[in-house]
Amino acid sequence: MPRASDTSLPFGDAVLRAPPGSPWKAWQIDPDAERRKVSLEALDPGARPFSSGDKAADRAAVERLATEIDELQNVFHPDGRYKLLVVLQGTDTSGKDGTVRGVFGRTSPLGVRTVGWKAPTEPERAHDFLWRIHQAMPGNGEIVVFNRSHYEDVLVPVVNGWINPAQTRQRYAHINDFERLLAETGTVVLKFMLHIGFDEQRQRLQDRIDDPTKHWKFSLGDLDVRQQWAQYQKAYEDLLEATSTPWAPWTVVPGNSKTHRNLMIATLVRDTLKALKLRFPPDDPRLKGLRVT
Amino acid sequence: MPRASDTSLPFGDAVLRAPPGSPWKAWQIDPDAERRKVSLEALDPGARPFSSGDKAADRAAVERLATEIDELQNVFHPDGRYKLLVVLQGTDTSGKDGTVRGVFGRTSPLGVRTVGWKAPTEPERAHDFLWRIHQAMPGNGEIVVFNRSHYEDVLVPVVNGWINPAQTRQRYAHINDFERLLAETGTVVLKFMLHIGFDEQRQRLQDRIDDPTKHWKFSLGDLDVRQQWAQYQKAYEDLLEATSTPWAPWTVVPGNSKTHRNLMIATLVRDTLKALKLRFPPDDPRLKGLRVT
Repeated sequence: MPRASDTSLPFGDAVLRAPPGSPWKAWQIDPDAERRKVSLEALDPGARPFSSGDKAADRAAVERLATEIDELQNVFHPDGRYKLLVVLQGTDTSGKDGTVRGVFGRTSPLGVRTVGWKAPTEPERAHDFLWRIHQAMPGNGEIVVFNRSHYEDVLVPVVNGWINPAQTRQRYAHINDFERLLAETGTVVLKFMLHIGFDEQRQRLQDRIDDPTKHWKFSLGDLDVRQQWAQYQKAYEDLLEATSTPWAPWTVVPGNSKTHRNLMIATLVRDTLKALKLRFPPDDPRLKGLRVT
Repeated sequence: MPRASDTSLPFGDAVLRAPPGSPWKAWQIDPDAERRKVSLEALDPGARPFSSGDKAADRAAVERLATEIDELQNVFHPDGRYKLLVVLQGTDTSGKDGTVRGVFGRTSPLGVRTVGWKAPTEPERAHDFLWRIHQAMPGNGEIVVFNRSHYEDVLVPVVNGWINPAQTRQRYAHINDFERLLAETGTVVLKFMLHIGFDEQRQRLQDRIDDPTKHWKFSLGDLDVRQQWAQYQKAYEDLLEATSTPWAPWTVVPGNSKTHRNLMIATLVRDTLKALKLRFPPDDPRLKGLRVT
């Protein structure tokens, strides 16, 4: 029986591939490598590969890009051939919420839907771990942004030892198969790992503790998770190695600079939407010269 | 990256395998064959491999089995380790509704849920073809019976030429990957193809036309589909060849005899539930000797 289909994407391979020589290339986990090693230590969270060198100019560029994304969404929707899933993963304080606001803050909520994933509920736990994820998928012409995702299921249980390495590998395979189904049926899957440093996290958590208006973003459990920093980094490296596929590759986003993080993600989302060569659906010929009376 | 996991089923392989020498063996599409040819012509729809030879005795056996399935469901639910999906596929009049009534008619509706699949709605068509299927999956301790299924998506579009052979193979692979996810996360998937002869269908359709109480089961379009009999048989053969996997094998059920059809499916469902070695969850030790006051 066929175990896996030849990947043939309705929107063409190039859409998901960092072009050689682009600043994206060094940060995309090579989807063509059969075996690869990912070292997050070797990827500087303070890097700014997409920066113009001028912070104010970068900020203005983010604003322009966010507007451009809104305009592209206005064609993406009626075009209706594709779906877009943007996955944001990263440790606490890595900037997932800030990315949603910065990159999609100018897009009409009609055109983009955000899903924030928490610990699974009882009915969710009674099903496979991709059941709730599949339900939340975008339909044709829809953009969905995941704040956390199914990748939590190969992070938290791994770090806490609730599943063993064989089960983890099984989940990687389930995820790859699932994302292949999505991609081959018209979903562009962009996966961003927001990468901040240990010290940057310390400052951001401290800030949440010191600022009463940020208390709602903080829970004491975040400090326990911080104690497991090294284990989480390792689990991230493992999943980046295992699930950066030709049909749904990962990009690591250096995240110590919030402006640069938004600049990089907004650029890549804009470029991806442009690469789709969106168009309005073919005209109804009866509309030609029609006068409303 | 891992493309596919080694199949390791939580309920053990044996649950899904027809034992050598059993009457089931000749009717299960061998899940271990790397390449196989399926010929429905070679499988007699009038055969009765599970029959005692005495129709009244067979009828009584179906009643006993249906009761036994209800009793097993009463443990299946609290056991909660597994999910059961029963897929019923077959042409018009092949006996899908009759199977649901005959095999599960004694099971409390609390314990079994039937889903009848029709042509997809607009929101369903805006997603991949497994989106609506995944949503309907049983949770732990649940039994779901599909009257038609995702296999319609490799029948109707194939026979009508809406998808090409490469797309059909891609769908087979999507289905196999999807069912592997289900099986590896605890869903027992039993797939039955109800196999009736061309002449038997003629009689049953005629009966629906002649009996006003059966008109609701008939539509004129059924006659058009009957004109495509040979193409549908071929599409069934192709899907049986492509999707009878070790984690979700197909069984062809000779269906000209309704009693025998129910006998065979009820026997296999009962045997499968028994093979799971169901048990009530471990006792809470605090219950020992507890007196209600």
